[in-house]
Amino acid sequence: MPDVIPDDSVGLVTPQLQHFDQPLTLRSGRVLPQYDLMYETYGSLNSNQSNAVLICHALSGDHHAAGYHSMDDKKPGWWDTAIGPGKAIDTNRFFVVALNNLGGCSGSTGPTSINPESGEVYGPEFPILAVRDWVNSQARLADVLGIQQWAAVVGGSLGGMQVLRWSIQFPERVRHAVVIASAPKLSAQNIAFNEVARQAIAKDPDFHDGWYHKFDTIPKSGLMQARMLGHLTYLSDDAMRQKFGRDLKKGKLSYSFAPEFEVESYLHYQGEKFSTRFDANTYMLMTKALDYFDPAADFDNDLVTCLSRSQCDYLVVSFTTDWRFSPERSEEIVNALVHADKNVSYACIESDNGHDAFLLPIPRYMDIFKAYMQRVAASIPLDNAAEVTA
Amino acid sequence: MPDVIPDDSVGLVTPQLQHFDQPLTLRSGRVLPQYDLMYETYGSLNSNQSNAVLICHALSGDHHAAGYHSMDDKKPGWWDTAIGPGKAIDTNRFFVVALNNLGGCSGSTGPTSINPESGEVYGPEFPILAVRDWVNSQARLADVLGIQQWAAVVGGSLGGMQVLRWSIQFPERVRHAVVIASAPKLSAQNIAFNEVARQAIAKDPDFHDGWYHKFDTIPKSGLMQARMLGHLTYLSDDAMRQKFGRDLKKGKLSYSFAPEFEVESYLHYQGEKFSTRFDANTYMLMTKALDYFDPAADFDNDLVTCLSRSQCDYLVVSFTTDWRFSPERSEEIVNALVHADKNVSYACIESDNGHDAFLLPIPRYMDIFKAYMQRVAASIPLDNAAEVTA
Repeated sequence: MPDVIPDDSVGLVTPQLQHFDQPLTLRSGRVLPQYDLMYETYGSLNSNQSNAVLICHALSGDHHAAGYHSMDDKKPGWWDTAIGPGKAIDTNRFFVVALNNLGGCSGSTGPTSINPESGEVYGPEFPILAVRDWVNSQARLADVLGIQQWAAVVGGSLGGMQVLRWSIQFPERVRHAVVIASAPKLSAQNIAFNEVARQAIAKDPDFHDGWYHKFDTIPKSGLMQARMLGHLTYLSDDAMRQKFGRDLKKGKLSYSFAPEFEVESYLHYQGEKFSTRFDANTYMLMTKALDYFDPAADFDNDLVTCLSRSQCDYLVVSFTTDWRFSPERSEEIVNALVHADKNVSYACIESDNGHDAFLLPIPRYMDIFKAYMQRVAASIPLDNAAEVTA
Repeated sequence: MPDVIPDDSVGLVTPQLQHFDQPLTLRSGRVLPQYDLMYETYGSLNSNQSNAVLICHALSGDHHAAGYHSMDDKKPGWWDTAIGPGKAIDTNRFFVVALNNLGGCSGSTGPTSINPESGEVYGPEFPILAVRDWVNSQARLADVLGIQQWAAVVGGSLGGMQVLRWSIQFPERVRHAVVIASAPKLSAQNIAFNEVARQAIAKDPDFHDGWYHKFDTIPKSGLMQARMLGHLTYLSDDAMRQKFGRDLKKGKLSYSFAPEFEVESYLHYQGEKFSTRFDANTYMLMTKALDYFDPAADFDNDLVTCLSRSQCDYLVVSFTTDWRFSPERSEEIVNALVHADKNVSYACIESDNGHDAFLLPIPRYMDIFKAYMQRVAASIPLDNAAEVTA
């Protein structure tokens, strides 16, 4: 709800829908006969289409990465701290593309869409996707937008996995890859957390095996539990200690099972909010894409060989208290890139904020990110038609 | 299912039930008019009752800590690795008492018991307990057994909290306190994990607000999810990587929501097994006792002042990869004890096994534990009637 749009905001933005009627064959072998992608753009594409940056979103993200949809919006897009005039991803220099991934619930084709083959909502019949499927669909969007090569592909968490996949799947189409708070594959512990979250949804009687729309209901408590668990793993132990400690909601214990500690109320609130905005089948799909991601598996589990295919430079960023994708996981990527003779810059950022740090405007993080993106801007091929003036 | 009882086993044991008809006033202000405690003993009490060791169990433990109930038992008691002839808690020297805590579901009075005031099963009306209530009830059991002072009170995790509470609540009744893989209070993160687990149970439609016995059902899927989450937090990331990695159950992905990775199947199995043996209301109660535990709260949050009341010596043990109760949490206890001028031995044991390590026969752990317990045995006051011969 900005009274005035801030100077460093991309301002009011309007999402666009792109239809694709060429079938997309998925990793699972299934085929999407046609699909839509909802996306937003910020900044201007230069005349030789060399200043485009793709933003890949994480588990619960969408295409609304920056700016406002209306003057009534309470909050800007989810990565407004990083995208805008003069920001790390400087929209005076770059043409930024952010989309809602396939399988999403914010306008792109997903479980809530109509299956053209049946004329009914896909629901649980929407195919399970892999990160490579997203990258393939994103490449088609790039084709439509006339972008042959991205100046940079950028993402955090599950978004970082899409960046890694882009760099090996379309090596010639990526000049720079920015991989933030990510991992080359999930650990058994990561998969286990996802499965507990999925079970919470799947066992909610309102889930109806994913057909809840037919019963005019949503698996609210399952989604709420999944989000409570997810959210808890995005925060660090330290951050939670500082934010909540053992503070009691009503100053004293009630000896009941209602939320008594502040941290319980906070998680209930976060879970509740999420359960009314996010689609349960999409949540299930997104966690599966996380579980499946393992690009080195096609290269005899050798991440060095896998990443050797890439032709881009890399920035890899991790955060000290991120225990979901710890710095060690980022360092696996960095070490493999070094052994593959790639140019890689790496920063481990001191932060108390756990995995969530990647969304926050931490000064050293933003400085390093901005410096790297200035290097990306400097490498934009000369464009005689539209001089970059900012 | 031992063909022959091993030499270092306490052998076949028979649980005993002790009834208490004196009301017990709880921390919540509620009163239990009468109650039973189920317990087992191993070894012999010496004539001056000075060689008794109390075992306090953790969240899902019970009174069956060592030995076998019958030759058909597949497994011995839950801490058989530590209790027996020649073991760390040497039953040739000590008289060991292990009980099922109040609120439990293994024979002691709890939610599945009949409420004498209503003539019906307590169910969710069983009062929420605090660690101090357990200690008070354990003290009465000690009275019945003629034990004025424990040679040692010993426990891991939630059991370690009971040990700490014993040492300040009945300082004159404890000579040695052994606090393993524990913490002086839960962190916000710990509480959050408990609340997610409780929500899984509470939102299971078969829970019926705790009155499931009236509907002849159990909240199986809720308990299963709670256990899956709990179990996952007891293991270390490293242990899960070594045990499961990303191994697939059927060698390849199925692109379905059925468990695909070995780690998922394992957690389903553990959850399933637990859901048929453990009472849901008990699980809810036990996690609340964990959340509430904070002995320093009565001393202006000063753990040093709190522990200054104690008169015993301490052994504190932690495990390197325990992230539920990390070594830092044990070190808070150790530092407070040092500042309170208490005798404290501390060992942080190298282990890959996370929180679960406290139940495992890790050689350095068992060596240190045994050495300390030998010191405890050496400090047993002379008993003219029954010489300790072992």
